[in-house]
Amino acid sequence: MNSSESRTGVTPADFDAIMREKVPFVGDMGVVTESLSEDTAVLRLPFNERYLRPGNVVTGPAIFALADIALYAVAWLVVPKADLAVTTEATVHFLSGAKPGDLMAEAKILKAGRRLLIAECHIRSCVDDALVAHVIGTYAMPPAEK
Amino acid sequence: MNSSESRTGVTPADFDAIMREKVPFVGDMGVVTESLSEDTAVLRLPFNERYLRPGNVVTGPAIFALADIALYAVAWLVVPKADLAVTTEATVHFLSGAKPGDLMAEAKILKAGRRLLIAECHIRSCVDDALVAHVIGTYAMPPAEK
Amino acid sequence: MNSSESRTGVTPADFDAIMREKVPFVGDMGVVTESLSEDTAVLRLPFNERYLRPGNVVTGPAIFALADIALYAVAWLVVPKADLAVTTEATVHFLSGAKPGDLMAEAKILKAGRRLLIAECHIRSCVDDALVAHVIGTYAMPPAEK
Amino acid sequence: MNSSESRTGVTPADFDAIMREKVPFVGDMGVVTESLSEDTAVLRLPFNERYLRPGNVVTGPAIFALADIALYAVAWLVVPKADLAVTTEATVHFLSGAKPGDLMAEAKILKAGRRLLIAECHIRSCVDDALVAHVIGTYAMPPAEK
Repeated sequence: MNSSESRTGVTPADFDAIMREKVPFVGDMGVVTESLSEDTAVLRLPFNERYLRPGNVVTGPAIFALADIALYAVAWLVVPKADLAVTTEATVHFLSGAKPGDLMAEAKILKAGRRLLIAECHIRSCVDDALVAHVIGTYAMPPAEK
Repeated sequence: MNSSESRTGVTPADFDAIMREKVPFVGDMGVVTESLSEDTAVLRLPFNERYLRPGNVVTGPAIFALADIALYAVAWLVVPKADLAVTTEATVHFLSGAKPGDLMAEAKILKAGRRLLIAECHIRSCVDDALVAHVIGTYAMPPAEK
Repeated sequence: MNSSESRTGVTPADFDAIMREKVPFVGDMGVVTESLSEDTAVLRLPFNERYLRPGNVVTGPAIFALADIALYAVAWLVVPKADLAVTTEATVHFLSGAKPGDLMAEAKILKAGRRLLIAECHIRSCVDDALVAHVIGTYAMPPAEK
Repeated sequence: MNSSESRTGVTPADFDAIMREKVPFVGDMGVVTESLSEDTAVLRLPFNERYLRPGNVVTGPAIFALADIALYAVAWLVVPKADLAVTTEATVHFLSGAKPGDLMAEAKILKAGRRLLIAECHIRSCVDDALVAHVIGTYAMPPAEK
Protein backbone atom coordinates (compact mmCIF):
# COMPACT_ATOMS: atom_id res chain seq x y z
CA MET A 1 0.00 0.00 0.00
CA ASN A 2 1.56 3.31 -0.97
CA SER A 3 0.89 6.62 0.70
CA SER A 4 -1.79 7.51 -1.82
CA GLU A 5 -3.92 4.45 -1.15
CA SER A 6 -6.50 3.60 1.43
CA ARG A 7 -8.12 0.45 2.79
CA THR A 8 -11.25 1.18 0.80
CA GLY A 9 -9.36 1.89 -2.39
CA VAL A 10 -10.45 5.53 -2.57
CA THR A 11 -7.72 7.61 -4.22
CA PRO A 12 -6.93 11.34 -3.95
CA ALA A 13 -8.43 11.83 -7.42
CA ASP A 14 -11.59 10.01 -6.29
CA PHE A 15 -11.95 12.19 -3.23
CA ASP A 16 -11.33 15.36 -5.24
CA ALA A 17 -14.27 14.31 -7.43
CA ILE A 18 -16.40 13.49 -4.37
CA MET A 19 -15.84 16.97 -2.96
CA ARG A 20 -16.67 18.70 -6.23
CA GLU A 21 -19.83 16.69 -6.85
CA LYS A 22 -21.22 16.08 -3.41
CA VAL A 23 -20.11 19.01 -1.24
CA PRO A 24 -19.87 21.97 -3.64
CA PHE A 25 -19.70 24.59 -0.87
CA VAL A 26 -16.30 23.19 0.07
CA GLY A 27 -15.43 21.69 -3.32
CA ASP A 28 -15.70 25.12 -4.95
CA MET A 29 -13.04 26.40 -2.56
CA GLY A 30 -10.58 24.36 -4.62
CA VAL A 31 -9.49 22.01 -1.83
CA VAL A 32 -7.04 19.39 -3.15
CA THR A 33 -6.45 15.94 -1.68
CA GLU A 34 -2.68 15.59 -1.30
CA SER A 35 -2.56 12.04 0.04
CA LEU A 36 -4.64 9.28 1.61
CA SER A 37 -3.26 6.41 3.63
CA GLU A 38 -4.68 3.78 5.94
CA ASP A 39 -5.75 6.18 8.66
CA THR A 40 -4.68 9.65 7.53
CA ALA A 41 -5.85 12.18 4.94
CA VAL A 42 -3.89 15.26 3.91
CA LEU A 43 -5.73 18.05 2.11
CA ARG A 44 -4.66 21.51 0.98
CA LEU A 45 -6.74 24.69 0.84
CA PRO A 46 -5.30 27.05 -1.81
CA PHE A 47 -5.22 30.64 -0.59
CA ASN A 48 -7.81 33.16 -1.71
CA GLU A 49 -7.91 36.79 -0.60
CA ARG A 50 -11.61 36.39 0.13
CA TYR A 51 -10.67 34.24 3.16
CA LEU A 52 -8.94 37.11 4.95
CA ARG A 53 -10.46 38.80 8.00
CA PRO A 54 -9.31 41.69 10.23
CA GLY A 55 -5.76 41.07 11.43
CA ASN A 56 -4.86 39.88 7.91
CA VAL A 57 -5.42 36.23 8.81
CA VAL A 58 -7.58 33.49 7.34
CA THR A 59 -11.10 33.50 8.76
CA GLY A 60 -12.23 30.68 11.08
CA PRO A 61 -15.04 29.34 8.88
CA ALA A 62 -12.65 28.77 5.96
CA ILE A 63 -10.34 26.83 8.29
CA PHE A 64 -13.28 24.86 9.68
CA ALA A 65 -14.46 24.01 6.16
CA LEU A 66 -11.04 22.53 5.38
CA ALA A 67 -10.99 20.55 8.62
CA ASP A 68 -14.51 19.22 8.19
CA ILE A 69 -13.84 17.97 4.67
CA ALA A 70 -10.58 16.38 5.86
CA LEU A 71 -12.54 14.52 8.54
CA TYR A 72 -15.03 13.48 5.85
CA ALA A 73 -12.10 12.14 3.83
CA VAL A 74 -11.07 9.84 6.68
CA ALA A 75 -14.62 8.48 6.81
CA TRP A 76 -14.07 7.38 3.19
CA LEU A 77 -10.91 5.59 4.37
CA VAL A 78 -13.02 3.43 6.66
CA VAL A 79 -16.15 2.56 4.68
CA PRO A 80 -16.38 2.15 0.92
CA LYS A 81 -19.33 4.45 0.45
CA ALA A 82 -19.38 7.11 3.12
CA ASP A 83 -21.66 9.65 1.38
CA LEU A 84 -24.03 9.64 4.29
CA ALA A 85 -21.48 9.84 7.07
CA VAL A 86 -22.37 12.99 9.01
CA THR A 87 -20.50 15.08 11.53
CA THR A 88 -22.26 14.88 14.87
CA GLU A 89 -19.95 17.26 16.67
CA ALA A 90 -16.62 18.99 16.27
CA THR A 91 -14.44 21.16 18.48
CA VAL A 92 -12.00 23.58 16.91
CA HIS A 93 -9.19 25.43 18.69
CA PHE A 94 -7.56 28.30 16.82
CA LEU A 95 -3.93 28.33 17.92
CA SER A 96 -2.33 31.11 15.87
CA GLY A 97 -3.37 33.53 13.15
CA ALA A 98 -3.11 31.89 9.72
CA LYS A 99 -0.99 34.14 7.50
CA PRO A 100 -2.13 34.72 3.91
CA GLY A 101 -1.19 31.50 2.12
CA ASP A 102 -2.25 27.91 1.57
CA LEU A 103 -3.30 25.76 4.51
CA MET A 104 -2.58 22.06 4.93
CA ALA A 105 -4.85 19.77 6.95
CA GLU A 106 -3.78 16.38 8.26
CA ALA A 107 -6.70 14.35 9.59
CA LYS A 108 -6.08 11.13 11.49
CA ILE A 109 -8.35 8.45 12.87
CA LEU A 110 -8.39 8.16 16.68
CA LYS A 111 -11.17 5.58 16.88
CA ALA A 112 -13.00 3.77 14.14
CA GLY A 113 -16.02 2.06 15.65
CA ARG A 114 -18.89 0.48 13.79
CA ARG A 115 -21.12 3.44 14.54
CA LEU A 116 -18.80 6.31 15.35
CA LEU A 117 -15.58 7.58 13.89
CA ILE A 118 -13.54 9.97 16.03
CA ALA A 119 -10.71 11.76 14.28
CA GLU A 120 -8.50 14.77 14.82
CA CYS A 121 -7.10 17.24 12.35
CA HIS A 122 -4.05 19.48 12.62
CA ILE A 123 -4.00 22.48 10.31
CA ARG A 124 -0.72 24.18 9.43
CA SER A 125 0.17 27.24 7.42
CA CYS A 126 2.17 26.55 4.27
CA VAL A 127 3.80 29.98 4.77
CA ASP A 128 5.66 29.22 7.98
CA ASP A 129 4.48 25.72 9.00
CA ALA A 130 2.82 27.20 12.13
CA LEU A 131 0.10 25.08 13.71
CA VAL A 132 -2.96 27.27 13.19
CA ALA A 133 -5.78 25.03 14.36
CA HIS A 134 -6.68 21.71 15.95
CA VAL A 135 -10.03 20.09 15.29
CA ILE A 136 -11.42 16.94 16.85
CA GLY A 137 -14.77 15.57 15.84
CA THR A 138 -17.13 12.66 15.53
CA TYR A 139 -18.73 11.23 12.41
CA ALA A 140 -21.79 9.00 12.64
CA MET A 141 -21.10 6.26 10.11
CA PRO A 142 -23.78 5.02 7.72
CA PRO A 143 -25.10 1.52 8.44
CA ALA A 144 -23.20 -1.20 6.59
CA GLU A 145 -24.82 -2.24 3.32
CA LYS A 146 -26.36 -5.69 3.23
CA MET B 1 -33.53 50.35 23.87
CA ASN B 2 -35.47 48.58 21.15
CA SER B 3 -34.79 45.13 19.87
CA SER B 4 -32.64 46.41 17.04
CA GLU B 5 -30.23 48.30 19.28
CA SER B 6 -27.21 47.28 21.27
CA ARG B 7 -25.16 48.73 24.13
CA THR B 8 -22.44 49.77 21.72
CA GLY B 9 -24.87 51.35 19.29
CA VAL B 10 -24.09 48.93 16.47
CA THR B 11 -27.20 48.39 14.32
CA PRO B 12 -28.17 45.49 12.05
CA ALA B 13 -27.31 47.63 9.03
CA ASP B 14 -23.89 48.38 10.58
CA PHE B 15 -23.18 44.72 11.13
CA ASP B 16 -24.35 43.80 7.63
CA ALA B 17 -21.74 46.26 6.35
CA ILE B 18 -19.07 44.88 8.72
CA MET B 19 -19.62 41.36 7.38
CA ARG B 20 -19.47 42.47 3.74
CA GLU B 21 -16.31 44.54 4.18
CA LYS B 22 -14.33 42.66 6.79
CA VAL B 23 -15.28 39.00 6.45
CA PRO B 24 -16.10 38.54 2.75
CA PHE B 25 -15.99 34.72 2.91
CA VAL B 26 -19.10 34.85 5.09
CA GLY B 27 -20.38 38.22 3.91
CA ASP B 28 -20.64 36.91 0.34
CA MET B 29 -22.94 34.15 1.57
CA GLY B 30 -25.56 36.87 1.94
CA VAL B 31 -26.03 36.54 5.70
CA VAL B 32 -28.49 39.16 7.02
CA THR B 33 -28.58 40.59 10.54
CA GLU B 34 -32.20 40.31 11.66
CA SER B 35 -31.87 41.93 15.10
CA LEU B 36 -29.38 42.95 17.76
CA SER B 37 -30.20 43.51 21.40
CA GLU B 38 -28.23 43.89 24.60
CA ASP B 39 -26.90 40.35 24.66
CA THR B 40 -28.38 38.59 21.63
CA ALA B 41 -27.83 38.64 17.88
CA VAL B 42 -30.14 37.03 15.34
CA LEU B 43 -28.80 36.39 11.82
CA ARG B 44 -30.28 34.62 8.80
CA LEU B 45 -28.46 32.57 6.17
CA PRO B 46 -30.47 32.63 2.92
CA PHE B 47 -30.61 29.22 1.29
CA ASN B 48 -28.41 28.36 -1.67
CA GLU B 49 -28.38 24.98 -3.42
CA ARG B 50 -24.59 25.03 -3.25
CA TYR B 51 -24.87 24.40 0.52
CA LEU B 52 -26.47 20.97 0.05
CA ARG B 53 -24.59 17.75 0.75
CA PRO B 54 -25.52 14.05 0.54
CA GLY B 55 -28.77 13.42 2.40
CA ASN B 56 -30.18 16.66 0.89
CA VAL B 57 -29.26 18.68 3.96
CA VAL B 58 -27.18 21.82 4.48
CA THR B 59 -23.47 21.05 4.90
CA GLY B 60 -21.80 21.55 8.28
CA PRO B 61 -19.29 24.22 7.20
CA ALA B 62 -22.09 26.50 5.95
CA ILE B 63 -23.84 26.12 9.31
CA PHE B 64 -20.59 26.76 11.16
CA ALA B 65 -19.96 29.90 9.10
CA LEU B 66 -23.35 31.26 10.13
CA ALA B 67 -22.73 30.44 13.80
CA ASP B 68 -19.24 31.92 13.85
CA ILE B 69 -20.40 35.21 12.35
CA ALA B 70 -23.31 35.32 14.82
CA LEU B 71 -20.81 34.92 17.67
CA TYR B 72 -18.72 37.71 16.10
CA ALA B 73 -21.86 39.87 16.10
CA VAL B 74 -22.24 39.47 19.86
CA ALA B 75 -18.63 40.59 20.30
CA TRP B 76 -19.71 43.86 18.62
CA LEU B 77 -22.50 44.11 21.21
CA VAL B 78 -19.90 44.20 23.97
CA VAL B 79 -17.10 46.42 22.68
CA PRO B 80 -17.45 49.35 20.28
CA LYS B 81 -14.76 48.22 17.88
CA ALA B 82 -14.48 44.46 17.87
CA ASP B 83 -12.69 44.00 14.54
CA LEU B 84 -9.87 42.15 16.18
CA ALA B 85 -11.95 39.90 18.42
CA VAL B 86 -10.96 36.36 17.43
CA THR B 87 -12.51 32.98 18.05
CA THR B 88 -10.21 30.93 20.25
CA GLU B 89 -12.35 27.80 20.22
CA ALA B 90 -15.81 26.62 19.31
CA THR B 91 -17.74 23.39 19.71
CA VAL B 92 -20.56 22.57 17.34
CA HIS B 93 -23.15 19.82 17.76
CA PHE B 94 -25.25 18.95 14.73
CA LEU B 95 -28.65 17.93 16.07
CA SER B 96 -30.75 17.25 12.99
CA GLY B 97 -30.37 17.47 9.24
CA ALA B 98 -31.08 21.00 8.01
CA LYS B 99 -33.67 20.81 5.23
CA PRO B 100 -33.17 22.94 2.12
CA GLY B 101 -34.17 26.44 3.25
CA ASP B 102 -33.00 29.47 5.20
CA LEU B 103 -31.33 29.02 8.57
CA MET B 104 -31.71 31.35 11.57
CA ALA B 105 -28.99 31.73 14.18
CA GLU B 106 -29.60 33.18 17.63
CA ALA B 107 -26.36 33.91 19.47
CA LYS B 108 -26.44 34.88 23.15
CA ILE B 109 -23.79 35.99 25.61
CA LEU B 110 -23.11 33.55 28.45
CA LYS B 111 -20.17 35.44 29.94
CA ALA B 112 -18.70 38.80 28.97
CA GLY B 113 -15.36 39.16 30.74
CA ARG B 114 -12.73 41.77 30.05
CA ARG B 115 -10.62 39.29 28.14
CA LEU B 116 -12.96 36.51 27.10
CA LEU B 117 -16.46 36.39 25.73
CA ILE B 118 -18.27 33.06 25.90
CA ALA B 119 -21.47 32.79 23.90
CA GLU B 120 -23.75 30.11 22.56
CA CYS B 121 -25.71 29.95 19.35
CA HIS B 122 -28.81 27.96 18.48
CA ILE B 123 -29.46 27.40 14.79
CA ARG B 124 -32.92 26.57 13.54
CA SER B 125 -34.34 25.71 10.16
CA CYS B 126 -36.80 28.26 8.77
CA VAL B 127 -38.55 25.35 7.00
CA ASP B 128 -39.80 23.53 10.09
CA ASP B 129 -38.24 25.41 13.03
CA ALA B 130 -36.20 22.30 13.93
CA LEU B 131 -33.11 22.91 16.05
CA VAL B 132 -30.33 21.90 13.66
CA ALA B 133 -27.20 22.88 15.58
CA HIS B 134 -25.83 24.23 18.84
CA VAL B 135 -22.53 26.07 18.93
CA ILE B 136 -20.69 27.34 21.99
CA GLY B 137 -17.47 29.25 21.68
CA THR B 138 -14.99 31.72 23.10
CA TYR B 139 -13.85 35.03 21.63
CA ALA B 140 -10.64 36.67 22.84
CA MET B 141 -11.55 40.33 23.08
CA PRO B 142 -9.22 43.06 21.82
CA PRO B 143 -7.56 45.15 24.56
CA ALA B 144 -9.57 48.26 25.47
CA GLU B 145 -8.45 51.41 23.65
CA LYS B 146 -6.78 54.04 25.77
CA MET C 1 -46.97 13.02 34.61
CA ASN C 2 -45.68 15.09 37.49
CA SER C 3 -42.29 16.74 37.66
CA SER C 4 -40.76 13.81 39.48
CA GLU C 5 -41.65 11.26 36.84
CA SER C 6 -40.05 10.23 33.60
CA ARG C 7 -41.12 8.36 30.47
CA THR C 8 -39.24 5.29 31.60
CA GLY C 9 -40.69 5.40 35.10
CA VAL C 10 -37.33 6.01 36.77
CA THR C 11 -37.80 8.12 39.91
CA PRO C 12 -35.37 10.39 41.76
CA ALA C 13 -35.04 7.71 44.47
CA ASP C 14 -34.26 5.13 41.77
CA PHE C 15 -31.56 7.29 40.26
CA ASP C 16 -30.07 8.06 43.67
CA ALA C 17 -29.70 4.30 44.14
CA ILE C 18 -28.25 3.87 40.64
CA MET C 19 -25.54 6.44 41.37
CA ARG C 20 -24.65 4.87 44.71
CA GLU C 21 -24.45 1.33 43.35
CA LYS C 22 -23.15 1.77 39.84
CA VAL C 23 -21.01 4.91 39.85
CA PRO C 24 -19.55 5.08 43.37
CA PHE C 25 -16.91 7.69 42.45
CA VAL C 26 -19.74 10.17 41.91
CA GLY C 27 -22.30 8.50 44.16
CA ASP C 28 -19.98 8.90 47.15
CA MET C 29 -19.94 12.65 46.55
CA GLY C 30 -23.50 12.63 47.89
CA VAL C 31 -25.17 13.91 44.71
CA VAL C 32 -28.98 14.04 45.12
CA THR C 33 -31.55 13.78 42.34
CA GLU C 34 -33.93 16.70 42.88
CA SER C 35 -36.35 16.00 40.03
CA LEU C 36 -36.78 14.08 36.78
CA SER C 37 -39.24 14.97 34.06
CA GLU C 38 -39.77 13.94 30.46
CA ASP C 39 -36.57 15.49 29.14
CA THR C 40 -34.89 17.16 32.12
CA ALA C 41 -32.97 16.02 35.19
CA VAL C 42 -32.08 18.26 38.12
CA LEU C 43 -29.34 17.10 40.50
CA ARG C 44 -27.67 18.78 43.45
CA LEU C 45 -24.05 18.45 44.60
CA PRO C 46 -23.82 19.17 48.35
CA PHE C 47 -20.83 21.34 49.19
CA ASN C 48 -17.68 19.85 50.68
CA GLU C 49 -14.56 21.85 51.56
CA ARG C 50 -12.48 19.24 49.75
CA TYR C 51 -13.85 20.56 46.45
CA LEU C 52 -12.20 23.98 46.88
CA ARG C 53 -9.20 25.05 44.83
CA PRO C 54 -7.07 28.23 44.73
CA GLY C 55 -9.32 31.27 44.39
CA ASN C 56 -11.71 29.69 46.94
CA VAL C 57 -13.92 28.24 44.23
CA VAL C 58 -15.12 24.72 43.47
CA THR C 59 -12.64 22.76 41.34
CA GLY C 60 -13.50 21.91 37.73
CA PRO C 61 -13.43 18.10 38.10
CA ALA C 62 -16.08 18.22 40.86
CA ILE C 63 -18.28 20.35 38.59
CA PHE C 64 -17.66 17.99 35.66
CA ALA C 65 -18.56 14.98 37.81
CA LEU C 66 -21.91 16.58 38.63
CA ALA C 67 -22.58 17.43 34.97
CA ASP C 68 -21.62 13.99 33.70
CA ILE C 69 -23.91 12.20 36.16
CA ALA C 70 -26.74 14.61 35.27
CA LEU C 71 -26.26 13.72 31.60
CA TYR C 72 -26.31 10.03 32.61
CA ALA C 73 -29.60 10.70 34.38
CA VAL C 74 -31.19 11.96 31.17
CA ALA C 75 -30.08 8.76 29.42
CA TRP C 76 -32.23 6.91 31.99
CA LEU C 77 -35.14 9.16 30.99
CA VAL C 78 -34.91 7.82 27.44
CA VAL C 79 -34.27 4.09 27.79
CA PRO C 80 -35.46 1.84 30.61
CA LYS C 81 -32.08 0.31 31.34
CA ALA C 82 -29.31 2.72 30.48
CA ASP C 83 -26.51 1.17 32.56
CA LEU C 84 -24.31 0.84 29.52
CA ALA C 85 -24.93 4.26 28.03
CA VAL C 86 -21.48 5.85 27.79
CA THR C 87 -20.31 9.41 27.27
CA THR C 88 -18.53 9.65 23.95
CA GLU C 89 -17.58 13.30 24.29
CA ALA C 90 -18.37 16.34 26.39
CA THR C 91 -17.42 20.00 26.25
CA VAL C 92 -17.44 22.07 29.42
CA HIS C 93 -17.20 25.85 29.64
CA PHE C 94 -16.50 27.34 33.05
CA LEU C 95 -18.34 30.67 33.16
CA SER C 96 -17.73 32.01 36.67
CA GLY C 97 -16.02 30.86 39.84
CA ALA C 98 -18.34 28.66 41.91
CA LYS C 99 -18.48 30.06 45.45
CA PRO C 100 -18.33 27.63 48.37
CA GLY C 101 -21.81 26.11 48.48
CA ASP C 102 -24.06 23.56 46.83
CA LEU C 103 -24.28 23.35 43.05
CA MET C 104 -27.40 22.58 41.02
CA ALA C 105 -27.24 20.92 37.61
CA GLU C 106 -30.10 20.99 35.13
CA ALA C 107 -29.56 18.60 32.24
CA LYS C 108 -31.87 18.69 29.23
CA ILE C 109 -32.18 16.56 26.11
CA LEU C 110 -31.35 18.33 22.84
CA LYS C 111 -31.60 15.25 20.62
CA ALA C 112 -32.66 11.72 21.47
CA GLY C 113 -31.76 9.49 18.56
CA ARG C 114 -31.74 5.73 18.51
CA ARG C 115 -27.97 5.63 18.78
CA LEU C 116 -26.94 8.99 20.19
CA LEU C 117 -28.29 11.22 22.90
CA ILE C 118 -27.11 14.83 22.89
CA ALA C 119 -27.90 16.84 25.99
CA GLU C 120 -26.76 20.04 27.65
CA CYS C 121 -26.39 20.87 31.30
CA HIS C 122 -26.41 24.26 33.03
CA ILE C 123 -24.80 24.37 36.46
CA ARG C 124 -25.67 27.13 38.91
CA SER C 125 -24.42 28.05 42.34
CA CYS C 126 -26.99 27.71 45.12
CA VAL C 127 -25.21 30.61 46.89
CA ASP C 128 -26.02 33.32 44.36
CA ASP C 129 -27.70 31.51 41.45
CA ALA C 130 -24.76 32.42 39.18
CA LEU C 131 -24.32 30.27 36.08
CA VAL C 132 -20.99 28.59 36.78
CA ALA C 133 -20.70 26.11 33.93
CA HIS C 134 -22.27 24.86 30.71
CA VAL C 135 -21.68 21.30 29.54
CA ILE C 136 -22.84 19.72 26.29
CA GLY C 137 -22.17 16.11 25.53
CA THR C 138 -23.06 12.96 23.68
CA TYR C 139 -24.07 9.58 25.09
CA ALA C 140 -23.88 6.46 22.96
CA MET C 141 -27.04 4.58 23.85
CA PRO C 142 -27.04 0.84 24.48
CA PRO C 143 -28.70 -1.26 21.75
CA ALA C 144 -32.40 -1.92 22.44
CA GLU C 145 -33.03 -5.25 24.17
CA LYS C 146 -34.75 -7.92 22.13
CA MET D 1 17.56 20.29 31.45
CA ASN D 2 16.64 16.70 32.24
CA SER D 3 13.25 15.16 31.67
CA SER D 4 12.14 15.88 35.23
CA GLU D 5 12.75 19.62 35.00
CA SER D 6 10.74 22.50 33.67
CA ARG D 7 11.39 26.08 32.58
CA THR D 8 9.93 27.36 35.84
CA GLY D 9 11.92 24.94 37.96
CA VAL D 10 8.85 23.12 39.28
CA THR D 11 9.70 19.47 39.93
CA PRO D 12 7.46 16.39 40.05
CA ALA D 13 7.75 16.42 43.86
CA ASP D 14 6.71 20.08 43.89
CA PHE D 15 3.65 19.40 41.77
CA ASP D 16 2.70 16.38 43.88
CA ALA D 17 2.69 18.73 46.89
CA ILE D 18 0.70 21.37 44.96
CA MET D 19 -2.00 18.81 44.14
CA ARG D 20 -2.25 17.57 47.72
CA GLU D 21 -2.42 21.03 49.27
CA LYS D 22 -4.30 23.08 46.72
CA VAL D 23 -6.63 20.69 44.89
CA PRO D 24 -7.48 18.02 47.47
CA PHE D 25 -10.41 16.61 45.45
CA VAL D 26 -7.89 15.40 42.89
CA GLY D 27 -4.87 15.20 45.22
CA ASP D 28 -6.69 12.69 47.40
CA MET D 29 -7.08 10.40 44.39
CA GLY D 30 -3.37 9.73 44.74
CA VAL D 31 -2.33 11.13 41.36
CA VAL D 32 1.47 11.00 40.95
CA THR D 33 3.56 13.29 38.73
CA GLU D 34 5.80 10.98 36.69
CA SER D 35 7.76 13.63 34.78
CA LEU D 36 7.78 17.29 33.79
CA SER D 37 9.68 18.72 30.86
CA GLU D 38 9.67 21.99 28.95
CA ASP D 39 6.21 21.57 27.48
CA THR D 40 4.93 18.19 28.67
CA ALA D 41 3.61 16.75 31.93
CA VAL D 42 3.07 13.05 32.57
CA LEU D 43 0.85 12.04 35.50
CA ARG D 44 -0.42 8.66 36.68
CA LEU D 45 -3.77 7.87 38.31
CA PRO D 46 -3.42 4.75 40.48
CA PHE D 47 -6.37 2.41 40.06
CA ASN D 48 -9.13 2.24 42.65
CA GLU D 49 -12.18 -0.02 42.41
CA ARG D 50 -14.34 2.97 43.29
CA TYR D 51 -13.65 4.40 39.82
CA LEU D 52 -15.41 1.54 38.03
CA ARG D 53 -18.77 2.00 36.36
CA PRO D 54 -21.09 -0.37 34.43
CA GLY D 55 -19.13 -2.17 31.71
CA ASN D 56 -16.26 -2.64 34.18
CA VAL D 57 -14.45 0.44 32.93
CA VAL D 58 -13.15 3.56 34.64
CA THR D 59 -15.82 6.28 34.92
CA GLY D 60 -15.52 9.45 32.84
CA PRO D 61 -15.26 11.92 35.75
CA ALA D 62 -12.21 10.10 37.17
CA ILE D 63 -10.55 10.31 33.74
CA PHE D 64 -11.49 13.97 33.42
CA ALA D 65 -10.05 14.71 36.86
CA LEU D 66 -6.72 13.21 35.78
CA ALA D 67 -6.73 15.19 32.52
CA ASP D 68 -7.65 18.46 34.18
CA ILE D 69 -4.87 18.20 36.75
CA ALA D 70 -2.40 17.28 33.99
CA LEU D 71 -3.42 20.44 32.11
CA TYR D 72 -2.95 22.38 35.38
CA ALA D 73 0.53 20.89 35.61
CA VAL D 74 1.48 22.32 32.22
CA ALA D 75 0.32 25.76 33.40
CA TRP D 76 2.97 25.44 36.14
CA LEU D 77 5.52 24.73 33.40
CA VAL D 78 4.80 28.14 31.87
CA VAL D 79 4.47 30.54 34.80
CA PRO D 80 6.26 30.25 38.15
CA LYS D 81 3.16 30.62 40.28
CA ALA D 82 0.13 29.29 38.46
CA ASP D 83 -2.18 28.78 41.46
CA LEU D 84 -4.81 30.99 39.92
CA ALA D 85 -4.68 29.61 36.40
CA VAL D 86 -8.22 28.41 35.69
CA THR D 87 -9.69 26.13 33.06
CA THR D 88 -12.01 28.14 30.85
CA GLU D 89 -13.12 25.21 28.70
CA ALA D 90 -12.23 21.64 27.95
CA THR D 91 -13.42 19.04 25.47
CA VAL D 92 -13.03 15.36 26.25
CA HIS D 93 -13.47 12.47 23.82
CA PHE D 94 -13.69 8.99 25.30
CA LEU D 95 -12.10 6.66 22.77
CA SER D 96 -12.21 3.22 24.39
CA GLY D 97 -13.29 1.76 27.70
CA ALA D 98 -10.52 2.04 30.29
CA LYS D 99 -9.89 -1.40 31.76
CA PRO D 100 -9.38 -1.71 35.54
CA GLY D 101 -5.83 -0.45 36.09
CA ASP D 102 -3.71 2.67 36.33
CA LEU D 103 -4.11 5.46 33.79
CA MET D 104 -1.32 7.61 32.39
CA ALA D 105 -1.93 11.16 31.18
CA GLU D 106 0.46 13.02 28.91
CA ALA D 107 -0.41 16.71 28.63
CA LYS D 108 1.36 18.89 26.09
CA ILE D 109 1.30 22.60 25.33
CA LEU D 110 -0.18 23.55 21.95
CA LYS D 111 -0.08 27.31 22.47
CA ALA D 112 1.32 29.33 25.34
CA GLY D 113 0.11 32.89 24.98
CA ARG D 114 0.35 35.62 27.58
CA ARG D 115 -3.31 35.24 28.46
CA LEU D 116 -4.31 31.80 27.29
CA LEU D 117 -2.69 28.40 27.41
CA ILE D 118 -4.10 25.73 25.10
CA ALA D 119 -2.96 22.19 25.75
CA GLU D 120 -3.99 18.67 24.89
CA CYS D 121 -3.83 15.51 26.92
CA HIS D 122 -3.75 11.90 25.79
CA ILE D 123 -4.78 9.33 28.37
CA ARG D 124 -3.69 5.73 28.03
CA SER D 125 -4.42 2.58 30.01
CA CYS D 126 -1.41 1.07 31.78
CA VAL D 127 -3.06 -2.34 31.28
CA ASP D 128 -2.86 -2.49 27.50
CA ASP D 129 -1.56 0.96 26.44
CA ALA D 130 -4.90 1.67 24.71
CA LEU D 131 -5.70 5.33 24.10
CA VAL D 132 -8.75 5.82 26.30
CA ALA D 133 -9.34 9.56 26.07
CA HIS D 134 -8.24 12.79 24.42
CA VAL D 135 -8.78 16.11 26.17
CA ILE D 136 -8.06 19.57 24.79
CA GLY D 137 -8.60 22.64 26.88
CA THR D 138 -7.81 26.26 27.62
CA TYR D 139 -6.38 27.76 30.79
CA ALA D 140 -6.70 31.49 31.48
CA MET D 141 -3.32 32.42 32.90
CA PRO D 142 -2.95 34.67 35.94
CA PRO D 143 -1.59 38.18 35.20
CA ALA D 144 2.19 38.39 35.51
CA GLU D 145 3.40 39.59 38.92
CA LYS D 146 5.02 43.00 39.02
